[in-house]
Amino acid sequence: MTNSIKAVIFDVFGTVVDWRTSVSNHLAPALAAKSIDIDPLELAVFWRGRYDPAMNKIRTGERGYIALDQIHLENLEQTLEHFGLDQLFNEDEKAQMNKAWEHLNPWPDSVDGLTALKSQTIIAPCSNGSIALMTRLSKFGKLPWDCILGADIAQNYKPHPDVYGACCKALRLKPQEVMMAACHNNDLKAARACGLATAFVPRPTEHGPNQTTDLSAEQDWDIVADDFKDLAEKFKNLN
Amino acid sequence: MTNSIKAVIFDVFGTVVDWRTSVSNHLAPALAAKSIDIDPLELAVFWRGRYDPAMNKIRTGERGYIALDQIHLENLEQTLEHFGLDQLFNEDEKAQMNKAWEHLNPWPDSVDGLTALKSQTIIAPCSNGSIALMTRLSKFGKLPWDCILGADIAQNYKPHPDVYGACCKALRLKPQEVMMAACHNNDLKAARACGLATAFVPRPTEHGPNQTTDLSAEQDWDIVADDFKDLAEKFKNLN
Repeated sequence: MTNSIKAVIFDVFGTVVDWRTSVSNHLAPALAAKSIDIDPLELAVFWRGRYDPAMNKIRTGERGYIALDQIHLENLEQTLEHFGLDQLFNEDEKAQMNKAWEHLNPWPDSVDGLTALKSQTIIAPCSNGSIALMTRLSKFGKLPWDCILGADIAQNYKPHPDVYGACCKALRLKPQEVMMAACHNNDLKAARACGLATAFVPRPTEHGPNQTTDLSAEQDWDIVADDFKDLAEKFKNLN
Repeated sequence: MTNSIKAVIFDVFGTVVDWRTSVSNHLAPALAAKSIDIDPLELAVFWRGRYDPAMNKIRTGERGYIALDQIHLENLEQTLEHFGLDQLFNEDEKAQMNKAWEHLNPWPDSVDGLTALKSQTIIAPCSNGSIALMTRLSKFGKLPWDCILGADIAQNYKPHPDVYGACCKALRLKPQEVMMAACHNNDLKAARACGLATAFVPRPTEHGPNQTTDLSAEQDWDIVADDFKDLAEKFKNLN
């Protein structure tokens, strides 16, 4: 029996790349250069913590769509203010710090797994990152996408249903012909509600060694894989 | 001196791929299967001839944006009717013929040239093809784009200025940081009017052995290259 899935679309932050240590590593020299004695990991985690509330204003219509690059910069300013550092960095330095999100390291299995999957089907990010951000991030990490989909295409943010719908429409595929892959159960739940197939890949250290969320599949997702290489294998055997 | 261009965006039909012989080759077995004695090349050229008038209705606002996949199908129906063949093919067969546009062979230098350029800068199609069409066409021809831009992003068709503008905006770049590459002088003229840099690569047999148009650069484009490998070399030395 032939696999009816014609494209697999991916969450990126957490699922494909390790934002936590990468952002921290990007911030470290900027802090060190000014002899700031704050753990860059703490800054990275606080910064990322502003992500969802900021997008929520757009999901609810309280604010019109703006690209994640801009949201990240605003959130960086709030983060620096929170740590009492806002007077220490000029606009150019903040723009440079914001580029952290374009320099996120893929998990060790990501590129090999995506490459194996790309020989079987269309692969694309379905991320809240903009086309600009995903393009640069993917170039940095050598992620072999067939195209870039996600928030910019929909002018909205996951888990709003518009985003999954817009990705299917952009590929001219029915939702049941598209599989969403993520390490976040709530992302898959939203995709399933839109009619997409689903694949779960755990990333048990996305939030560090003491992570308590998303350690395992919380529903009977169509595929539950150990990592991206396992995902490519399981996709091959999907009925 | 460092090159200030941060992305090169490409016309695709004609510039990157040879639509004329590819579409003809795709149609040939469909005609042969029904013992239709019409040159498939003649059909391909007539079909392509309906392309610009159909898009023009959208550029002028006479018709709302629809993806090129749909325009190609409508134009195929008109083409079959013109040749008195419209009763001979059912919907599925016509859909299969329409897939010709997803199976266009790159010119011999395209993939090597794009690969060489990709190591220097962001590369993306700025085609009138939809994301769906460009994704499948690129997968077929192994075109190593960093992302897919073009008509779908702008919801309009080249040479309308919205398309060039939307591509720059999607990459968060200024027009002067983006170079448009094409084998059509009018595409470059429109891109230059929007502030983009320009690169001309002749494709003297796009329209067959007796081609009379676009045989050479008609303005002082920023780069005039012999082929894509030469383009990648000249880009490297751009000041």
